[in-house]
Amino acid sequence: MEQPRYGNLFQPEIKELIDNKEFALLKEVFGEWQAPDLAELIADLPEDHQPIIFRLLPRPLMSDVFEHLDLATKKKLLTGLGKSEIAHILNEMSPDVRTQMLEELPSGLVKQMLELLSAEEMKIAQDLLGYPENSIGRLMTPDYIAVKESMTVARVLAHIRKKGKDSETLNMIYVVDEKGALLDDISIRQVLLAPPGKRVESLMDHTFVSLKTTDDQESAVLTFRKYHLYAIPVVDAEGILIGIVTIDDVLHVAEQETTEDIHKMGGMEALEGPYLHAPLFRLARKRATWLVALFLGEMMTATAMGYYEVEIARAVVLALFVPLIISSGGNSGSQASTLVIRAMAIGELRLRDWWRVFIREIGSGLILGAVLAVIGFLRIAIWQQAFHLYGAHWVLVGMVVAFTLVGVVLWGSLMGSMLPFILKRLGADPATSSAPFVATLVDVSGILIYFNIAYLILRGIIL
Amino acid sequence: MEQPRYGNLFQPEIKELIDNKEFALLKEVFGEWQAPDLAELIADLPEDHQPIIFRLLPRPLMSDVFEHLDLATKKKLLTGLGKSEIAHILNEMSPDVRTQMLEELPSGLVKQMLELLSAEEMKIAQDLLGYPENSIGRLMTPDYIAVKESMTVARVLAHIRKKGKDSETLNMIYVVDEKGALLDDISIRQVLLAPPGKRVESLMDHTFVSLKTTDDQESAVLTFRKYHLYAIPVVDAEGILIGIVTIDDVLHVAEQETTEDIHKMGGMEALEGPYLHAPLFRLARKRATWLVALFLGEMMTATAMGYYEVEIARAVVLALFVPLIISSGGNSGSQASTLVIRAMAIGELRLRDWWRVFIREIGSGLILGAVLAVIGFLRIAIWQQAFHLYGAHWVLVGMVVAFTLVGVVLWGSLMGSMLPFILKRLGADPATSSAPFVATLVDVSGILIYFNIAYLILRGIIL
Repeated sequence: MEQPRYGNLFQPEIKELIDNKEFALLKEVFGEWQAPDLAELIADLPEDHQPIIFRLLPRPLMSDVFEHLDLATKKKLLTGLGKSEIAHILNEMSPDVRTQMLEELPSGLVKQMLELLSAEEMKIAQDLLGYPENSIGRLMTPDYIAVKESMTVARVLAHIRKKGKDSETLNMIYVVDEKGALLDDISIRQVLLAPPGKRVESLMDHTFVSLKTTDDQESAVLTFRKYHLYAIPVVDAEGILIGIVTIDDVLHVAEQETTEDIHKMGGMEALEGPYLHAPLFRLARKRATWLVALFLGEMMTATAMGYYEVEIARAVVLALFVPLIISSGGNSGSQASTLVIRAMAIGELRLRDWWRVFIREIGSGLILGAVLAVIGFLRIAIWQQAFHLYGAHWVLVGMVVAFTLVGVVLWGSLMGSMLPFILKRLGADPATSSAPFVATLVDVSGILIYFNIAYLILRGIIL
Repeated sequence: MEQPRYGNLFQPEIKELIDNKEFALLKEVFGEWQAPDLAELIADLPEDHQPIIFRLLPRPLMSDVFEHLDLATKKKLLTGLGKSEIAHILNEMSPDVRTQMLEELPSGLVKQMLELLSAEEMKIAQDLLGYPENSIGRLMTPDYIAVKESMTVARVLAHIRKKGKDSETLNMIYVVDEKGALLDDISIRQVLLAPPGKRVESLMDHTFVSLKTTDDQESAVLTFRKYHLYAIPVVDAEGILIGIVTIDDVLHVAEQETTEDIHKMGGMEALEGPYLHAPLFRLARKRATWLVALFLGEMMTATAMGYYEVEIARAVVLALFVPLIISSGGNSGSQASTLVIRAMAIGELRLRDWWRVFIREIGSGLILGAVLAVIGFLRIAIWQQAFHLYGAHWVLVGMVVAFTLVGVVLWGSLMGSMLPFILKRLGADPATSSAPFVATLVDVSGILIYFNIAYLILRGIIL
């Protein structure tokens, strides 16, 4: 990748300028940088330097750079900057980014921030914060271009030239009726390619996709994914256009959702915000909940093993293979649940597909179980020839291990693949059926399968 | 979410029309649908119906609908449609989507397809296929708007009206010199907001981000994420503009990368393509590799347990807690590796952060280990009072379990968090340190920790 012209490339020199307090020179240099690079530089600075350097930015860049900062740095800057700078930034920010910042701040601070806004911006901010959390209303911005059916293309272009400055995007423009109800969306491409005298109505196809303010943010992700759009209009219950959602807001939501899914799949509660920023005790708490739940579930293995204590005492050789057997069930379950959870998340699998998955996993489970069974039996046979560890009945012990592996891997594959469907059917998040969760369930049943097969094969011989 | 006006809502009726062969009516209905909805309908049809219905689409929609189909359906259609239709679709498709389809086809079929292209499109297709796999060259399209510094805004708009029809995006236009070298990018917003007499050079800031044809596709994802762009220009080694990459291509790459990461984190090779489309044996093979590797690794637990066979025979009670202990180490390791792998993937953690993570995980590991130790000891104490399972020395056994839990959870957290760093440092994919992989490593060491602590505490008493 070509390095941006001004970026980390010159960071050592920048640091030197900062250390030498060459503020006039820095100010000049910053004027030529792009906002994302400036944001990166500021985020990398020691905390007490951040407000000093931020103040050197040209005013028109300030809100743009601020928008690119991560939430933790934003918060720190809000306490380090002066009132007039904060007021400037807050009034210039995109309303959607501002909402997403305000919803993370403590309510006392939100009140202070709102008071710094102009009457107009305060109304916008309060309206947006009035929508429920995780709703489309919180993601949208009211800055868009709306036109009437009767306007000509030339008139639309003049309208954009006059009103377009604040619009979040100029890629799509929206056709509304007298009452503001959304009639259609047209892309700027259509406008730019049409002769200037053509009317808007002749560009319309009366086919559009829209979201409601109260819709869940996840639905926006799915809609963007399906229709390959850059912006989607948002309407209220009466169909009145009140905002738009753009793809960059949705990318952020999609990334957060995936991170939450992955954390759950790793066997813990989803961590909100970056790993390094989470206080140690919160981090531990998010992990402890599931770790303790899994521990309590896993205790049943001790109970199950205790139930077979007499058998273990008689044939200690059986105990040696317990970790090998239960981990194989857990691993195949982890694979199956991972496949199914991810396929569900990206819309490849729906509830009605459960039966096809069930059939596939019987196939996979039997194949994989058979492969491990052969390897497991060979392992016992070879070690027996070499070290004579497993006694006179090693063939039978090998058979117990082999049959158990087929059963446990099949069982793990079925549990791992079906649990996400069951959770989804019950309205829970399929990602909760994490690898550790499936492994714990399979561990207990794996022990039961193992000792029952052992009992069947070895009864009257060594049991 | 508001339903698209025509979509699955009317699917039963559509199916009826198909069954009754009401093709004239269907043709009329389809004319009013959007391409993504048509693609969804066709993908949901039985395989033999797909080409029949596809042929009913209005010609101008055909290539658009085709682009929205998943790869498997695309392949099937290519064998079911006539030569003239395929030629039409292939010539009308976006060059970038076409490249991504062609690179998945067997080379014999690619040759047939290329022969159906016009001379101009064939050259474009061959050029794009000439770039290395997973390079930016394979993602880009040569359809963009380029202008000269000396042009006025009015002239630019006229140029767009004339040449813009095929351009992949009109959101950005690119300023090039006489030789075609990229000088700057300007957004359509700047053009639309500027007075018509203004010259392009006065809109330029000479600051832009670009990619090279040979760059890795992952770098495009990172660049889009950092700069919040819709399109990035692509230049060759001499800085000559030769294409653009748009955000929708990159979204696809990002989603695929995340899926590959998640599959690896689930303890298997990444599955390419949808779960339900993978042939059963390929699915089993992708899983078998890791499952067998983990099984071979896990065999060391049998070796380790075998090493302590005498101790187990003397104190069978110790064997009962083996699954509980090793699974706790595995679970804490799974949590730590999940957190670190995901934070690395989204750029939150860099290699240099390893020390901070190490310190945090010592803290987390000790806290979490202590929590489980207390619960574990209580479990033994309570069961002992209730069922007298653990013999006269149950307090010592409880202490062995408790100390082991602290050690194993700490060890699991450290292994889980440090392995992704080690893998990344070695140039491997951090996602390879999957939950099952970490669990397997921790299982073996967990057994060693357990029996060594048992030996220290119980030697001369029951061992």
